[in-house]
Amino acid sequence: MNEFAMASAVALRTADGGGPAVFDADLDARWAVGDKLHGGYLMAVLGRAAAAAGGEHRDLLSMSASFVRPPEPGPARVEVEVLRAGRGSTQSRTRLLQDSGVCAEALAVTGPLGEEEPHWSRSEPARLPAEEDCAPSPADAPGGFRVPLMDVVDQRLDPGALGFIAGAPSMRGEIAGWQRLADGADWDPLSLLVALDMVPPVSYDLGLPGWAPTVQMSSYIRRRPAPGPVQVRMNATEVGGDRMDVAVSAWDAKDRLVAQAVQIAAVRTPR
Amino acid sequence: MNEFAMASAVALRTADGGGPAVFDADLDARWAVGDKLHGGYLMAVLGRAAAAAGGEHRDLLSMSASFVRPPEPGPARVEVEVLRAGRGSTQSRTRLLQDSGVCAEALAVTGPLGEEEPHWSRSEPARLPAEEDCAPSPADAPGGFRVPLMDVVDQRLDPGALGFIAGAPSMRGEIAGWQRLADGADWDPLSLLVALDMVPPVSYDLGLPGWAPTVQMSSYIRRRPAPGPVQVRMNATEVGGDRMDVAVSAWDAKDRLVAQAVQIAAVRTPR
Repeated sequence: MNEFAMASAVALRTADGGGPAVFDADLDARWAVGDKLHGGYLMAVLGRAAAAAGGEHRDLLSMSASFVRPPEPGPARVEVEVLRAGRGSTQSRTRLLQDSGVCAEALAVTGPLGEEEPHWSRSEPARLPAEEDCAPSPADAPGGFRVPLMDVVDQRLDPGALGFIAGAPSMRGEIAGWQRLADGADWDPLSLLVALDMVPPVSYDLGLPGWAPTVQMSSYIRRRPAPGPVQVRMNATEVGGDRMDVAVSAWDAKDRLVAQAVQIAAVRTPR
Repeated sequence: MNEFAMASAVALRTADGGGPAVFDADLDARWAVGDKLHGGYLMAVLGRAAAAAGGEHRDLLSMSASFVRPPEPGPARVEVEVLRAGRGSTQSRTRLLQDSGVCAEALAVTGPLGEEEPHWSRSEPARLPAEEDCAPSPADAPGGFRVPLMDVVDQRLDPGALGFIAGAPSMRGEIAGWQRLADGADWDPLSLLVALDMVPPVSYDLGLPGWAPTVQMSSYIRRRPAPGPVQVRMNATEVGGDRMDVAVSAWDAKDRLVAQAVQIAAVRTPR
C-alpha cells in the first residue's frame, strides 16, 4: 500500500445499527505543515470514510469542509451519516473527532467518476515551465519552518511565484506548480484533495507573510487523474476584511482538468 | 419589513438547553422556480438562523450547502449547532428539516463584515450593458414554465446570453445580468445568497435545456452591498460526467465585489 493510502486509511468499527457509521483513523504527523495537519489531508481522511459508507458510490465527487480546531496526530474518529442515497450519487455528512471535540466537519457527495471526455470545456492547463525548471519546495523552509508534507509530496513551484522568498512578491495573487506523491504512487480522487490545498498560501505572493489558515474549503473531483504529475494553479481574487478567497484548479499529465477547489482563508492584512 | 426579510424569517423556539438551537421557518412558495423552492433562498433561511445563533457574529461570511431533498412551501424547522465560537468568527452546522427528513444541510461561518476597502483585488465588474438595455426575466417563462421567483426578484439578463431562447446559445458558458429585489428593498448579506443562485442555469447557454439542480453550493459574502442593483455573472468551466461547475461573482452598484459562489450541479449531457 502506498504512503498516502496508509496515512488516510480508515477502519470501520462494528456497526451499531441506525446511527452514523463510525470509523477509526490514525492521523499521520508527516502530512503536516509546521505542527498542523494539512487541510487537504484531513479532507482525504473524511472523503475515504464517506466513500466507504457510500454503498455503490465509491468515488468522492465533492466535499465542502469547515475546519474547526486543529487535530493532533494520532487516533481520531470519523463519523459518516448518509443524508440521501440517490440513484446517481450519495450525499453524506462527515465529521472528524478527537477527545477535544469536532475538529472538522464536511459535506460529501460520492458517486461514480465517469471516464468519458468532457461534453464542453473552457479549461486551459496552467502551462507551467517544465517540471525540472521549477523549484522544489523543501521540507525545511526558509526561517527554520518545518513542512513535513514536503517529505511525502514532491512539489515544484513556478519560479514566477517565488519572488516572495527574496522579498519581491509578484503581487499577481497566483502560485502554481507541479506535484507528485514522493513515493511514486499515482494521484487518485482522494489524494487530489491534498494537491488542491497547495503550500505556501497564495497570500505569500501578495506580500502577506503570515500563515493563512483555511476556514472553509470546497473541492470538486472532476475526473480520475492519469498517471504522472499534476499541475496546480491557485489564484486569489480579493483580500480584505482579513479574509481571502482562493480558487484552485488541477490538471493531470494529459492536460485534463481533474479537480477544482475554492477556499476562504483567514489572512492578517496590514492596518 | 421587506418581502425577503419576511420570507426568510426564523423564530427561535424556547431553548431546550444543550442541544442545537431550533428555529421555526415558514417557507414561502413565491421564492421558487417551477414548484421547487430556490436554493439561494433556502441558504438564506439557514444563514439567518446561523447568524441569529452566532452570538456577536451576526453577519454571514460563508455558507456551504448540500441540497438533499426539495422541501415543500410551508412550516419547516432549522437546527443550528455551534461547532466553534471563536474570537473573530463562529462556525456552525445548520440543517433544514421537514417531516420528510433533512432537506438541506449547510456549514456556516458568521462574523462581522468589515467596511474597509480591500487590501488587494483583481476583481473586475461584469461590465454589462445598461440595466434598461438588458432583458427582464419573466415569471411566466417560455413554454409555460412558471418562475414565481421572478415576481420577487427583478432580473434583467445580458442579451448576449439569451441566444438559447432562439435555439442559438452562445456556447460561452456564461450568463450575466442585473438583479434587484422587486419590492425595492436593498440587498443585504443574506439576500445576496439569492442573487448568487441565478436563474436560468448557465447550461442553457451551452445548449443543454434541461434543469440543472444544484448538488452542492458554497457562497462567500465579501462586503455589505451598497444600495442599488447588483451585477451577477456566472461561468461554467467544464461540463462532463453529467456534472457542471459554476463560478459566480456579484458586484454592487459601486462596482465592488460583494459576493462569490461556486456550485456543482447535475446536468444531463447528450450521449
